[in-house]
Amino acid sequence: MKSTLTLAALAAAFAAPAIAQTATGQTATGAPSLEAQADMAAESDAIAWDFVEGITTEVGPRQAGTEAEKRGRDWAVAWLRANGFRNVADEPFEMDTWIPGGVHRARVLGDFAQDLVIQPLGNSASTGADGIEAEVVYFPSFADLEAAPAAAVRGKIAFVSHAMKPSMDGSHYGYFGEARFSGPGIAAAKGAAGIVIRSIGTDYHRNPHTGVIRFPDGVEPIPAGALTLPDAENLARMFERAEGRPIRMRLTLTPERIGTQVSGNVVGEIVGRDPSLPPVLLACHIDSWWNSPGAFDDGAGCAIAAAAAKNVEATGTPLRTIRVLFAGAEEVGLLGSVAYSEAHIDEPIGVAFESDFGADRIWRFESNFRDSNPDLHARLAASVARFGVADSTIVASGGADINIARDQDTAIIDLQQDGTRYFDFHHTPDDTLDKIDPEQLRQNVAVWTQIAGILANYEGTIRPK
Amino acid sequence: MKSTLTLAALAAAFAAPAIAQTATGQTATGAPSLEAQADMAAESDAIAWDFVEGITTEVGPRQAGTEAEKRGRDWAVAWLRANGFRNVADEPFEMDTWIPGGVHRARVLGDFAQDLVIQPLGNSASTGADGIEAEVVYFPSFADLEAAPAAAVRGKIAFVSHAMKPSMDGSHYGYFGEARFSGPGIAAAKGAAGIVIRSIGTDYHRNPHTGVIRFPDGVEPIPAGALTLPDAENLARMFERAEGRPIRMRLTLTPERIGTQVSGNVVGEIVGRDPSLPPVLLACHIDSWWNSPGAFDDGAGCAIAAAAAKNVEATGTPLRTIRVLFAGAEEVGLLGSVAYSEAHIDEPIGVAFESDFGADRIWRFESNFRDSNPDLHARLAASVARFGVADSTIVASGGADINIARDQDTAIIDLQQDGTRYFDFHHTPDDTLDKIDPEQLRQNVAVWTQIAGILANYEGTIRPK
Repeated sequence: MKSTLTLAALAAAFAAPAIAQTATGQTATGAPSLEAQADMAAESDAIAWDFVEGITTEVGPRQAGTEAEKRGRDWAVAWLRANGFRNVADEPFEMDTWIPGGVHRARVLGDFAQDLVIQPLGNSASTGADGIEAEVVYFPSFADLEAAPAAAVRGKIAFVSHAMKPSMDGSHYGYFGEARFSGPGIAAAKGAAGIVIRSIGTDYHRNPHTGVIRFPDGVEPIPAGALTLPDAENLARMFERAEGRPIRMRLTLTPERIGTQVSGNVVGEIVGRDPSLPPVLLACHIDSWWNSPGAFDDGAGCAIAAAAAKNVEATGTPLRTIRVLFAGAEEVGLLGSVAYSEAHIDEPIGVAFESDFGADRIWRFESNFRDSNPDLHARLAASVARFGVADSTIVASGGADINIARDQDTAIIDLQQDGTRYFDFHHTPDDTLDKIDPEQLRQNVAVWTQIAGILANYEGTIRPK
Repeated sequence: MKSTLTLAALAAAFAAPAIAQTATGQTATGAPSLEAQADMAAESDAIAWDFVEGITTEVGPRQAGTEAEKRGRDWAVAWLRANGFRNVADEPFEMDTWIPGGVHRARVLGDFAQDLVIQPLGNSASTGADGIEAEVVYFPSFADLEAAPAAAVRGKIAFVSHAMKPSMDGSHYGYFGEARFSGPGIAAAKGAAGIVIRSIGTDYHRNPHTGVIRFPDGVEPIPAGALTLPDAENLARMFERAEGRPIRMRLTLTPERIGTQVSGNVVGEIVGRDPSLPPVLLACHIDSWWNSPGAFDDGAGCAIAAAAAKNVEATGTPLRTIRVLFAGAEEVGLLGSVAYSEAHIDEPIGVAFESDFGADRIWRFESNFRDSNPDLHARLAASVARFGVADSTIVASGGADINIARDQDTAIIDLQQDGTRYFDFHHTPDDTLDKIDPEQLRQNVAVWTQIAGILANYEGTIRPK
C-alpha cells in the first residue's frame, strides 16, 4: 500500500486550527475543539440516530411525488427547526409521477406452476388487472438480450439474469444495473410483451430490488418487474429442467402514472459568521421507494449531514454557512437535485458533498481540488486518517444529490463508504432501521464533522480555478 | 465435556460389520462397505440435491390439502419410482383445509401512516376484503397478553412481541412459539378484533413467519397475522414515539376455509432380504406453507431420507426393509403422521427416525434404547463420531412425522441438526434452495446412511422391552 500522506500534509492537518484550543480539547470559549467534537461523535451520537429512527418510524416509505414524501418533508422541516437550523424551507417543484399500484404477481404456468416474488420497476407500464400471459424467453445476461434478434423477443416476456457480486465501491451497480436501466427499453424496442429481470442486488432474500427504468424516447413502456435472486435462479433452473419445453408466465403488475404532482427540496442552515462567503453544502435525499422506509437509502445520509452540521456548530459558529439539502424525488431521476440547481445556479456554493450510499464505514477521501489546492486536500485527508479513512488520487465527481456543484464546476468531496452490504438492501423492503450499525453510523458522523468543520472555517477559495 | 464413549463401545462399532469387507472398503460382492459408502456420501451427492432441487424447482410451494401439495406427491411418487423404490404409493386421507387468500395488509393509520409487512397465520379468520380498523394494544410479551384484563383487549387489535433468539437445539421455538400457537386463541377469548404478532423467527428480513394457530374449542377464530421483525420493532417504536396517543390499524387478511380436501402420505421401500422383520422407517414431510418452496422445511428432510435409503441399498440388499414416509399435511397439525399411524398401527415398525429441522449439520445422536440395548446404542453413536456427531444421554422422542413410532412405543432415534439458522427461514418465503449448504446436506446424508445401514442389517430386536 502506497502512502499518500507527506510530512508536510500531516503538519498542516494538525497545525493552525481555525479556533485556538487548549490542551483539554476545549476552545477558549469553552466549546470543544473540532477534533474533540469529531472524536466525541465517533463515541456517542444523539442526533443522527434520532433523525433516521424518527423518519423511518414516524413516516416510513416516501415515494416521490406522493403524500408520503410530503409527510417526509414536513417531518424533516419540523426536525430541522426543532434542532435549531435557520432558513428552513421546503422548496417545491413539479414532477410527472409514477406509483407502483397494488398487484404484483408473476405466476409460472403449466408443469412447474408456482408464484415467483416480483415487484415493478419504476416507470413500468401496467399489465392491467388481468395480467398478460406469454412465453418466457431467457437471456442469461444483458448482452444476450442486446444481441437477440427481435423475432426471438416479440410477443414474449423477456427474462434477463446476470451475476452481480458485492463490491466495496459499488462499481458493479453501473455494470449490472444496465439490465434494469436499459433492459426494459431494449426489450420493448424488440416488441417484448413484458420483461422480468434478476434484481440488481446481492442478497438471497425474497425481497425484490426495484429502481428506475429509462425508456428511450419513442419507445412505448412495457410491464417490467424485478424478481428476487432465489426466484430468478429458480426460473433459470426451470429452463434447465424443461429441456426445451416452453415456460409460460402470467404477469400482473398494476402501476399507474398519476400525472403532475408536487415534490420538494428541504433546506436548512447553520448560518455562518460571514454569510457572504459561499456555503458548504451537505446533501442527501429525502425520498425512498414505496417498498421500504429508506433507512440506508437515504435516511441515514440526511441523518449524517444534519448531525455533522450540528456538531460543527457545537464547536462555535463557523465562518461559512453550512447548508443541508434534503433533495426530493432522487430515486425517480434526480429530479430534486436538478430542480435545486436550476433554482440556485446563480448562488455560488463553496464546496459540496453528499451521503447517499448507506451508513457503513467511510474508507476513502477524494476531492476535485487535490491539484489546485494541495495543502487543503492534504490537511483534510490527514484529519480523518484517525477514523480509518484513506487518501486517494481519484478525482471526486459527487453523486446524485449535488448536481448544482457539478453545474457550477465548484469544489466537490466524496467520502466513500463501504458498499459491500449496500446492494443487499438497496431499493428493497429490507432497507429498514435495523440494518444500520450504530458504530459505523457514528464513524460517518465523525468524519463528516471533521471535514465539514475544516471547510466551514476555511477562509480562502476551496477550489481555485 | 464428558466422553460417553467406552472402549467396549468403540470396539463394537468397528467390529463385526454385517457384511465382511476387504481392506479397500469393498465387500466380497464388489459393493462398497457401509462405512465406505457413508464416507463417499460425505464427499459427493447426486441423490439428495437432485431431490430437493427438483421438488423446489418443479413444484414449488405445497400447501396442505391443495392441488399444489398433490403435485408435490405426484412428483415424489415419480421420483421414487425412477430411483428404484418399490411399493411406492400415495395413501390418501381427508382433511379440513385452510388457504391463505390473496390480500395480506396491515396499514398503520394517522400520524405514522405506513404499511407493515404481514402474512396470515394458519387458521386465521378473514377480515373480509374491506379489512377491519381498530386501535392497536401492545403487549411486549405473551405473558403480558395472558395477564391483560379482557377490557384492555376487547374490540382492539392485539400486538404481541417477544425476543426469540437463535438456539442450536431450537428450544426457543417451544417457548416463544406460544405467542403464535396460543396467543390468537387467548386474544379471541378476550374479545380482540384481531391479533398481529412478531414473527416466531430470528431473521431481520421483511418475510413474515407463518405457522399454525390452535384456537381452543368454543373460541371463534379471529384474524391473525405475523409481522416481520423489522415491522414489529417499528410498530413497537411507534408506541414509544406516540407517547400515549392511540395507534390505529387497518388489517386486511383474506384466508378461506375450503372444506374437506384430500391430502396423502407418500411411501416407498427398499425391500429387505427378510421382509417379515419390522422395517426401518425414515420420515419427513412433503407439504410446505404456501409462501415458500419448502427447501429447508422439509424438502431437504425427504431428500436426506431418500438418499440414505438408496445409499444403504448400494452396499447390498439390507436385511430389513427400509421404508420412506413423506408425510402430507404436517404443517397444519401433523395430519399425515396421525393418518399414517391410524392406518398402519398394527404393522410393527422396527425403528423410526425423521429429518425435519433443515439441512444443517447433525451434531448429536440420541436413541430411546440406550438403557435397553446399550451395545447397539453405543455402536451407532460411535459409528458417526467421525462425522462430528456426539453421543447423548437424552432419550429420543422423535418428531412430527413419526407418530406411529410413539404410538407403537418402538425404537426411535433423533439425529439432532444444528438449528442456529433454522428460524431465519422457517415458514417464510425465504425457505428456498439457496439456503441449503451442500456440504452440510452431505454430512446429513452420510450420517443417515451410516445409521440406517447398521439398523437395516441388525438382526435382533432394536429396542427390547
